[in-house]
Amino acid sequence: MAEFSLHSELAANCVPVATWSLSELLLCNDANYPWLVLVPAQPGLRDFHDLPPDDMVSVGREISRASQALVELFAPDKVNVAALGNVVPQLHIHVVARFTRDLAWPSPVWGFAPPKAYASDVLDARIADLRLAFG
Amino acid sequence: MAEFSLHSELAANCVPVATWSLSELLLCNDANYPWLVLVPAQPGLRDFHDLPPDDMVSVGREISRASQALVELFAPDKVNVAALGNVVPQLHIHVVARFTRDLAWPSPVWGFAPPKAYASDVLDARIADLRLAFG
Repeated sequence: MAEFSLHSELAANCVPVATWSLSELLLCNDANYPWLVLVPAQPGLRDFHDLPPDDMVSVGREISRASQALVELFAPDKVNVAALGNVVPQLHIHVVARFTRDLAWPSPVWGFAPPKAYASDVLDARIADLRLAFG
Repeated sequence: MAEFSLHSELAANCVPVATWSLSELLLCNDANYPWLVLVPAQPGLRDFHDLPPDDMVSVGREISRASQALVELFAPDKVNVAALGNVVPQLHIHVVARFTRDLAWPSPVWGFAPPKAYASDVLDARIADLRLAFG
């Protein structure tokens, strides 16, 4: 049976933050927006509807947990949740804190501006803050 | 207690297709893409994580039902699922059939090209096909 492995583009563009019951929780290395990515750690998933019903319940819970941590830490104006996968086919769910003052507002973030990598101390602090907010 | 009413922009840009247990199911009046919109019919919802846990289970089921109908009818290359709401704040979930040959591919559809209204006979046929696919 095939094993799950993280798609190379997600591994290159994101940093691991936590391993949850269903998903690997990543932080996108783009300081333009507080941007989390959930990757259900099951092999062969492409679209949201590929998730078995039980995992769909889990993913809903994990999306909420990720969103609520962003709300607690950043008080965004909106949280964008999306499973697109037009570029990286492995199922992954974006959870992005959006602000009316952010670079792309009100456009979606994908493809809007080149990613701006975090300074390494800022990245470490952000990961620590997120882990604390997840509890 | 406040009652649910569909946001005026969703009412203007979409046509009603079905009333499901949680959501109003709409078809976006944009012939560029087969594009469904689920609107959980509860007042006051903005973000995905505003859904109570039971409704989150329902919405997962309804997203799958919408996606699978699109797959059955159109055999898309990908199904994009997203709750954005940067423009229309009422919680609504896009379920869009995407093709590597479509206008916006691989970009997201939002804001890419002006919507192209369906001819009325095509719209009627599409709604009928969708209702049949939903079973």
